[in-house]
Amino acid sequence: MSESIDQRIIDLGLTLPAAVQIPPGITVPLAMVKVVGKRVLVSGHGPQNDDGSIAEPLGQVGSDVTQEQAIHAARRVALAMLGTLQREFGTLDNIKTWVSVLGMVNTAPGFTGQTPVINGFSETIIEIFGPERGMAARSAVGMGGLPFGIPVEVQAELELY
Amino acid sequence: MSESIDQRIIDLGLTLPAAVQIPPGITVPLAMVKVVGKRVLVSGHGPQNDDGSIAEPLGQVGSDVTQEQAIHAARRVALAMLGTLQREFGTLDNIKTWVSVLGMVNTAPGFTGQTPVINGFSETIIEIFGPERGMAARSAVGMGGLPFGIPVEVQAELELY
Amino acid sequence: MSESIDQRIIDLGLTLPAAVQIPPGITVPLAMVKVVGKRVLVSGHGPQNDDGSIAEPLGQVGSDVTQEQAIHAARRVALAMLGTLQREFGTLDNIKTWVSVLGMVNTAPGFTGQTPVINGFSETIIEIFGPERGMAARSAVGMGGLPFGIPVEVQAELELY
Repeated sequence: MSESIDQRIIDLGLTLPAAVQIPPGITVPLAMVKVVGKRVLVSGHGPQNDDGSIAEPLGQVGSDVTQEQAIHAARRVALAMLGTLQREFGTLDNIKTWVSVLGMVNTAPGFTGQTPVINGFSETIIEIFGPERGMAARSAVGMGGLPFGIPVEVQAELELY
Repeated sequence: MSESIDQRIIDLGLTLPAAVQIPPGITVPLAMVKVVGKRVLVSGHGPQNDDGSIAEPLGQVGSDVTQEQAIHAARRVALAMLGTLQREFGTLDNIKTWVSVLGMVNTAPGFTGQTPVINGFSETIIEIFGPERGMAARSAVGMGGLPFGIPVEVQAELELY
Repeated sequence: MSESIDQRIIDLGLTLPAAVQIPPGITVPLAMVKVVGKRVLVSGHGPQNDDGSIAEPLGQVGSDVTQEQAIHAARRVALAMLGTLQREFGTLDNIKTWVSVLGMVNTAPGFTGQTPVINGFSETIIEIFGPERGMAARSAVGMGGLPFGIPVEVQAELELY
């Protein structure tokens, strides 16, 4: 993993989406990224299209959204978060390690597949950063709802070099 | 923002409630605030009345509690948390910045307004601390339930000077 | 509390379960424990039997699982987490303090007893580490679902000596 992370994303043919487009009339009085020394706290991200708009399908996983669709959405969440971090720092090469991940799945009654869904996020991060840097302490859990009806949301903490 | 935060709360006419009154028969074996070096971890807070009792209305947002009522409850959560911090440290002027906020909304099926609800918390903090210190990494998410049926709960991390 | 924590667990007659047995076909691309300097981030743990298998009963608390069963499950979560930490470090005596705990209860509609349920976790930790080291900043909240249908999941942060 001595290769540049920025280069690796290009080599893998991945596209990082533009900054999130919040629906009209909604304000988000928060820091998408808050840096405290070497610590980087990242706000909850949802799945985005390449232009930054919220990616469909929306709704609860296990009813409105299938597990397969949710895995794909979780992969989109990883790319959205990397886009935010690349805009924030100008590069992803300053990320030393992924510290913790809270993976939240908008859960229909009875759905218990939160682990494979959030694996869509974690496997994307590990594909890019490798297991040593990419494997974080993680919880993958089911929510009663998420903003705008997004099926997956992830917040994370990272450490910088 | 060179003004004292304690003074600013007075100038804004805000009242910080007394310590939370836990309902009889319930123990809470936790630290309302845990300090580790410059880091301050704050336990989940709900909406409180001025005397510290749990503020009504109770229940899920989107059914029992309206979005407007929940925004107001989230504002009360901010004041309750500031009350805890002021009792802990004797002042709020030692708070350098708000690092992260996990805003949890007791969510009725189909409710997707977690962002505006938790804005009631964030806007109160930013009104007092200003955007630089007050804007934290944040997730605003929907829960399947919250203790005592409170509509909103927030946990946070802060950094001290 | 100058006594060894490892010894105290033996003295209390407690058994720490083996490493978690993930159900077949599921991968968990995460670090059960991630260490960053003196900080220890612990992934979400559920209730385990002594052999590491997921402990029954499964389901939502307030319908499938009673509050009493969930308190017992939360106690099992504490022992599972201590087992992970003891395998990671070879001892529990290097743990200086419990920093934060996020206690998540798989919550049936209308159930509001998340506080007593997660007390099953906290009281176990405090029984072993004492109140000074064992009391953490905590949120005890209700989820819409949890992986494999476990009734309780807890993630935590600790500090090392």
